[in-house]
Amino acid sequence: MIIQLAPEITSDQREALKTQISSLKYKTNEVRTQIGEYIIGIGKEKFDVRNIGHLPGIKDIHIVSDDYKLVSRKWKVNQTTIDLGDGVLIGDGHFALMAGPCSIEGEENIVKTINHLKENGVQIMRGGVFKPRSSPYSFRGMGIEGLKLWYQLARENGIKIVTEVMQVSQIEEMHDYVDMFQVGARNTQNFNLLDELGKVDKAVMIKRGISGTIDELLYSAEYVFSGGNEKLLLCERGIRTYERASRNTFDINAIPILKEKTHLPVIADPSHGVGIRDHVEPVALASTVAGADGVIFEIHEKPEKAFSDGQQTLDYEESAKLIRKMRALRELV
Amino acid sequence: MIIQLAPEITSDQREALKTQISSLKYKTNEVRTQIGEYIIGIGKEKFDVRNIGHLPGIKDIHIVSDDYKLVSRKWKVNQTTIDLGDGVLIGDGHFALMAGPCSIEGEENIVKTINHLKENGVQIMRGGVFKPRSSPYSFRGMGIEGLKLWYQLARENGIKIVTEVMQVSQIEEMHDYVDMFQVGARNTQNFNLLDELGKVDKAVMIKRGISGTIDELLYSAEYVFSGGNEKLLLCERGIRTYERASRNTFDINAIPILKEKTHLPVIADPSHGVGIRDHVEPVALASTVAGADGVIFEIHEKPEKAFSDGQQTLDYEESAKLIRKMRALRELV
Amino acid sequence: MIIQLAPEITSDQREALKTQISSLKYKTNEVRTQIGEYIIGIGKEKFDVRNIGHLPGIKDIHIVSDDYKLVSRKWKVNQTTIDLGDGVLIGDGHFALMAGPCSIEGEENIVKTINHLKENGVQIMRGGVFKPRSSPYSFRGMGIEGLKLWYQLARENGIKIVTEVMQVSQIEEMHDYVDMFQVGARNTQNFNLLDELGKVDKAVMIKRGISGTIDELLYSAEYVFSGGNEKLLLCERGIRTYERASRNTFDINAIPILKEKTHLPVIADPSHGVGIRDHVEPVALASTVAGADGVIFEIHEKPEKAFSDGQQTLDYEESAKLIRKMRALRELV
Amino acid sequence: MIIQLAPEITSDQREALKTQISSLKYKTNEVRTQIGEYIIGIGKEKFDVRNIGHLPGIKDIHIVSDDYKLVSRKWKVNQTTIDLGDGVLIGDGHFALMAGPCSIEGEENIVKTINHLKENGVQIMRGGVFKPRSSPYSFRGMGIEGLKLWYQLARENGIKIVTEVMQVSQIEEMHDYVDMFQVGARNTQNFNLLDELGKVDKAVMIKRGISGTIDELLYSAEYVFSGGNEKLLLCERGIRTYERASRNTFDINAIPILKEKTHLPVIADPSHGVGIRDHVEPVALASTVAGADGVIFEIHEKPEKAFSDGQQTLDYEESAKLIRKMRALRELV
Repeated sequence: MIIQLAPEITSDQREALKTQISSLKYKTNEVRTQIGEYIIGIGKEKFDVRNIGHLPGIKDIHIVSDDYKLVSRKWKVNQTTIDLGDGVLIGDGHFALMAGPCSIEGEENIVKTINHLKENGVQIMRGGVFKPRSSPYSFRGMGIEGLKLWYQLARENGIKIVTEVMQVSQIEEMHDYVDMFQVGARNTQNFNLLDELGKVDKAVMIKRGISGTIDELLYSAEYVFSGGNEKLLLCERGIRTYERASRNTFDINAIPILKEKTHLPVIADPSHGVGIRDHVEPVALASTVAGADGVIFEIHEKPEKAFSDGQQTLDYEESAKLIRKMRALRELV
Repeated sequence: MIIQLAPEITSDQREALKTQISSLKYKTNEVRTQIGEYIIGIGKEKFDVRNIGHLPGIKDIHIVSDDYKLVSRKWKVNQTTIDLGDGVLIGDGHFALMAGPCSIEGEENIVKTINHLKENGVQIMRGGVFKPRSSPYSFRGMGIEGLKLWYQLARENGIKIVTEVMQVSQIEEMHDYVDMFQVGARNTQNFNLLDELGKVDKAVMIKRGISGTIDELLYSAEYVFSGGNEKLLLCERGIRTYERASRNTFDINAIPILKEKTHLPVIADPSHGVGIRDHVEPVALASTVAGADGVIFEIHEKPEKAFSDGQQTLDYEESAKLIRKMRALRELV
Repeated sequence: MIIQLAPEITSDQREALKTQISSLKYKTNEVRTQIGEYIIGIGKEKFDVRNIGHLPGIKDIHIVSDDYKLVSRKWKVNQTTIDLGDGVLIGDGHFALMAGPCSIEGEENIVKTINHLKENGVQIMRGGVFKPRSSPYSFRGMGIEGLKLWYQLARENGIKIVTEVMQVSQIEEMHDYVDMFQVGARNTQNFNLLDELGKVDKAVMIKRGISGTIDELLYSAEYVFSGGNEKLLLCERGIRTYERASRNTFDINAIPILKEKTHLPVIADPSHGVGIRDHVEPVALASTVAGADGVIFEIHEKPEKAFSDGQQTLDYEESAKLIRKMRALRELV
Repeated sequence: MIIQLAPEITSDQREALKTQISSLKYKTNEVRTQIGEYIIGIGKEKFDVRNIGHLPGIKDIHIVSDDYKLVSRKWKVNQTTIDLGDGVLIGDGHFALMAGPCSIEGEENIVKTINHLKENGVQIMRGGVFKPRSSPYSFRGMGIEGLKLWYQLARENGIKIVTEVMQVSQIEEMHDYVDMFQVGARNTQNFNLLDELGKVDKAVMIKRGISGTIDELLYSAEYVFSGGNEKLLLCERGIRTYERASRNTFDINAIPILKEKTHLPVIADPSHGVGIRDHVEPVALASTVAGADGVIFEIHEKPEKAFSDGQQTLDYEESAKLIRKMRALRELV
């Protein structure tokens, strides 16, 4: 049960409301986000809204049968739009492209990417400065100094940036230099990280776990939302299966299923989803017509020289062609 | 190694060729299909084609590094077209739609489906008369009599039919009443069935195994081809994973991967691929733009009354809408 | 619902019983096995046994809530014993070992294996004469002549044999030369094969599908049982997962779960379950203490020279050591 | 390549060694643990040890072909023993039992568990005070105060404790109140957490990821070891597969495979591995004979009243019986 509070609610009214809900054997969770205030009631008994509906200070009451609540489409039928500022919108009809290298590699790499994006009308750049790597001996990214450099160049060019945050202590140092935090597939259930991202007023894109279920992804989003941050996006990036002909199995089903279950925008990552350069395009196009609100993909001037993920990275020519095709399909659909 | 034989090869020349190949420590397999004759050489040594290239009776020699040979695109770069007669073509630019009920239910059900297909310009009807069922106590289909009735009605209306064959003994009794045999997901590695289907001159569509790999699907096709039948199609229908929000996980990656590995047409089955009626359309559209040569899907006048698979079956209105959308996308791509 | 019929039931009584069950909206399936006669009632309504309990000709009535019926432990609490003759028993306290090569390779191979088995008190020999192979160009086994030779040598030495049957037409030709038919992992849901095996009076061991569920395995056994053959064993042989460090993932959980769900003996196949020679022993021992009624494993005089599966095959010394250890554990447990 | 440094190495010698390795195109990583000092050389070229073997300050050089190095058994053939103090040893012949509730619930719960452990000679108690939960609205554990209470009671009774650490900031506050940190299945690839655990001098047990590979588990251990902490244990706790009859699929194969690949102790968690109370015993026994160095399992005075995981928790009677059986098997093996 989600109770949206009226802006003018008094603290006495709030206490009365909580007392009443508790008396009905429902646990209350108070949530205050950038946009509104909610009380989430969790309980197993049948709940008759008439028992609280008459109390002052309530804007609306929604019974949500899903175990996740605030991210469910059962109470918020209209899609959420994420506004990154300067007219960069994602969701509810705004189709967003995000492209860039796997790892941020240095100034030249950044500048070339930005130029390519601007030439093709792409407003959001992706890239990693903190890289999760299976082996401790691999390149772990340029770190915070790389981020600052990148952010400055992006800002000067009107480009928004999205990059992965790996741990709680990075949130603060990264905060002023990102437009969107990304939670990586290995951190989808890093609940402390999610808790802390609930406290910031920045967009957060959560990737599905390496073998995470759709429901687990929604629960992870519920962590951030109930922590206070409604600016959320979800990302399908392929799951781990027995099939070895591709890096991951891109779960195309997840796109319409997520769109039905949640009001949050759903982004597709075909680069990780298939993991093979030649097949990124068809998977990206498939995601576009399946209903994704955006596509994030890896590009590099010379994929074969990229610091990481070169085998699934498009060059600029392939990227430009893909962007044209996605837009044409999007118009048709 | 695939050696295409010249039509005018003499039996002495054929023997000389086989002897020479064997002397190079390659095992020979002779294949005679509707279209041509081949010798498949299997061996591990490095093979210098000059050792046999001078022999008479050879049309062409192809070194194929894949473990499957005849179905590989490494020797036959151009796509195969399947011709069902009366101008019904699949593959190499011919996009084919196949629709119909999960199970053939009787005359009324057949007639209504045929009418719907004709109204929408669909030339191929699917349906099961022999149904593989997990439980021995479930409805197992109308059997051969149902097939005869169906075939007669389809013929009268210019509709081609595709239906599942479950065992060797059914091939002969079904032979004159089908346009395309389907090998179901539980029989993808029923090698005896595949061997026997190599001996008939009818199109055969092989579904990917319930958790079959892409390579296993190609090997299964190699059985039929090397048995003598080149009229082959492959079908992606979703794989079994841990995800429970959908019936199967439709492997969209498999479509471009198969198109790269084989010259055979690739069909998508979104009905089984996602297993949820509301989501069949987006997965069908995704498959269309990902490069599928056709889409097979389940329809019923009243899905909720279908004998089986109702939860993933479209009604006629949904079907007509989907057909229009797929064709529009196909034209754009 | 399972109704065990009394041996002395008359045909009038049987008809009256069926009529009465049908009138209660239950579909009836008549089953006659080597051991008894049953009517299986399938329906969704609540069933009050008093509505039929008074009718003559009934030995016992069991309400079975599982979807599979005859193989369920809910009506037959005591474990089934499989009797292969000459005192060779499996199940209900009789622990059975079965060993032999992956493929039967010829007389010398058979004789050496038999001698090893006799020296170690093992009464059942495994081996393949019809081999399912992913590639049509691989060795497919010695066939029926190999089986006849093997059976004769085994018979002379008091050894029972178990071997895979791949298709319906093989049942009859193999029938007189096997003690136990094996249904392989690729044929677990070959329902026609299961139907036909229901008509023979030989033990049948069904392997779990390559990615088959435990329930699917039980349903497959229900096919054979309801077809008329109660002499059934189930075999866990590892499932397909994402893990690549082993050939399959041996599902040790399946052993106690199957033992709880069914009265049929459960056999473990550690050779396929892990697929690595050095690790067959620990998995075999684990299966023994987890409650398996028997273990089947691959042995060869010189594993590195075996026609197939050499990488997971034990030599005779390793085999003898494993047999001793399994017996010691079995005694303790 | 692992170079063990001699204790008496001078800083000049160390620099000379690093320079020489770098000149051979190998990247160097310096590792200093509680026990020794190492230089890890990472490179792709063939390496001739004679190029550095003559340099002073080297204790030993090991070429390790695995991608993980320090945790590999290729350089350290003898098993590692973990010493928790007061004679509590794990590994290299010391079989360790760890039992306790899923969540620490309060003083009474702690005391009863401790009494049960002492009666049965178990020296290590498990329990969670920080609980990772899919839903933000679930009970998240008693937190640090619960840990302090627990630690005090355990200390008074000579019991060691193991408990999960979920984030970097908890390490310091938990440090003085734990004997072993546990990294949970959702944090196996939380690389920052692993980095920080490399800096403490406490035993760390890393659970395999929810669908983590065996290699990923070894890499995660490599993070901690190369961070400076050799006191490591690995834990198999079941993986996520398509099978729904059990909570997870316990990967019994992983036990012998890990024992072959690494010198670190391997612990089995049958409670999570099967997730069904009645089947914890057979899986625990199977793990014992498969070579596990210890077993961790969940117990509660009244499992049906446990705060969490009751369905997979043993009561004290079942626990006592299991402990006796594991010890008997262990003696035999």
